[in-house]
Amino acid sequence: MTDPVAETGSPVLAIDIGGTKTAVAVVEPGGRVAAYDRIATPNDAGVDAEGLWRTLESLLDKIAADAGAPELAGVGVGCGGPMTWPAAAVSPLNIPAWRGFPLRERLRSRYPGLPVRVHNDAICVAVGEHWRGAGRGRDNVLGMVVSTGVGGGMVLGGHLIDGASGNAGHIGHVVVDPEGPPCVCGGRGCLEAVARGPGLVAWAQEQGWRPGRRDANGVELAADARRGHPVAEAAMVRAGRALGIAIASATHLCDLEVVAIGGGLSQAGALLFDPLEDALRTHARMEFARQVQVVPAALGQTSGLIGAAALIFAADRYWNAD
Amino acid sequence: MTDPVAETGSPVLAIDIGGTKTAVAVVEPGGRVAAYDRIATPNDAGVDAEGLWRTLESLLDKIAADAGAPELAGVGVGCGGPMTWPAAAVSPLNIPAWRGFPLRERLRSRYPGLPVRVHNDAICVAVGEHWRGAGRGRDNVLGMVVSTGVGGGMVLGGHLIDGASGNAGHIGHVVVDPEGPPCVCGGRGCLEAVARGPGLVAWAQEQGWRPGRRDANGVELAADARRGHPVAEAAMVRAGRALGIAIASATHLCDLEVVAIGGGLSQAGALLFDPLEDALRTHARMEFARQVQVVPAALGQTSGLIGAAALIFAADRYWNAD
Repeated sequence: MTDPVAETGSPVLAIDIGGTKTAVAVVEPGGRVAAYDRIATPNDAGVDAEGLWRTLESLLDKIAADAGAPELAGVGVGCGGPMTWPAAAVSPLNIPAWRGFPLRERLRSRYPGLPVRVHNDAICVAVGEHWRGAGRGRDNVLGMVVSTGVGGGMVLGGHLIDGASGNAGHIGHVVVDPEGPPCVCGGRGCLEAVARGPGLVAWAQEQGWRPGRRDANGVELAADARRGHPVAEAAMVRAGRALGIAIASATHLCDLEVVAIGGGLSQAGALLFDPLEDALRTHARMEFARQVQVVPAALGQTSGLIGAAALIFAADRYWNAD
Repeated sequence: MTDPVAETGSPVLAIDIGGTKTAVAVVEPGGRVAAYDRIATPNDAGVDAEGLWRTLESLLDKIAADAGAPELAGVGVGCGGPMTWPAAAVSPLNIPAWRGFPLRERLRSRYPGLPVRVHNDAICVAVGEHWRGAGRGRDNVLGMVVSTGVGGGMVLGGHLIDGASGNAGHIGHVVVDPEGPPCVCGGRGCLEAVARGPGLVAWAQEQGWRPGRRDANGVELAADARRGHPVAEAAMVRAGRALGIAIASATHLCDLEVVAIGGGLSQAGALLFDPLEDALRTHARMEFARQVQVVPAALGQTSGLIGAAALIFAADRYWNAD
């Protein structure tokens, strides 16, 4: 696919707001991150909606100064869901201070005259990986984040798919085992219920795994798997199988070319990807589905920021709203 | 959604080729079927590729004569898969005489200067239901055919999704039970493996159902379910649950508004749709997914022909190839 994006021109201010960290960047038209900063998202009980907003404003002031206060082409934002879309009144699951917070409206007031576009953070990761990462040059790509939750976004026919309410891409809630564990969504046997970090950690602890830290997460579990801990390895097999089944279903339904997987758990490498491939090749048996490639995400921790910038730079492919 | 299709102008010659029947129609720009004919697809061992083609040609001559030999806007075709796409060298699973048969090329030679477009028959049903049937006016629709197999097609963001090779929409191979029955695709626990008519008939016979005919199919099973046969009813519950799980997965992944279900099995009515709804509402629990509506297809046996015509009449929405 040709790439119509100019490599020169004004940069985009990109924002990535998650329950753990908030990152900001100035991203150039070609996708290069010219300035970057991040903070822990203020998330204790004393923080209210306006306090969180003021913290974000300070971070935005600082990054603009760091970058020499450039003229901006727009503001692109990835934020934890759920949110109304495209209005982006956001209620991030892991940021209780914001419930229906009018993020897009606030940013529009702060940056009058500039386009401001907000999407789900996992969507932005998928867009980043399609625009400049592991899915570049392919027209049918699923991008996934396997971490505290399991999220994703899909580019089909070269264009981001939003669905009826901006929620397309929720691969974490594809059913992989109808009789499986209950899911935070209220369902049962969703991919996320099996493969999310906290779910795997709980399962591994039930099987006798004893983490080094009380607040162990999927990254520590993945590290122990790499060190050869048999229960941690079994947890990666469990996650990998669930991922392979969900990806087989998605590939049959959407005729995907590439699936790019990022997030902490993907650091387990072959311990995760080998059982994933086994399950995928067992279940994705239609001839057209056999060519799908599952690869690690390529952009690392800046993928969401680069995707957020693409909502502005490559709006013809990634922004389907007003 | 506004509907830009003119109600006047030249009609389209529409063709629907399946393992059991071959239907042809002259379809007006508004979607009305002006002339219609069908034959049993010649499918015995003595029929070769050219014999089948000559039979189709005779049927096309007849329908053109019946319709008064109108000037045509194009030729739209739904054909059983698999096929190469968009070149449409077709190898329909249930028509052994055609293996790599150059259907589009032959039709182009027969109708020089006219656009000729061929797609999977289940895709054409989905397009028909979106254009003029149960999904009309909605932008995110899955159309399904539950019959000898389970097929489908998806319209997302108002446009038909093709995927990498024209195979998007294969809802029949979404995994509903990883340890479930083997599937004709080589996988295991696909929706089609559980819910296809022959699979249900075999299951019901194992459970003691005795059909009235030796070649009983899903339609007879559905009829017996309506008459209160407990095993036939249980077979509909089995199919309905599998459908509900697959539709929950598809709704979470693609943020669907409407799912339209056609095909012989859908004639079971509430006996199929009630357990389907139960399973769907158990598994489709994300807030955005709760609004999805599952409805019977509205166009009946002509839906595939109307969809084939839409490949010509509404190409901006339904035809993404050359």
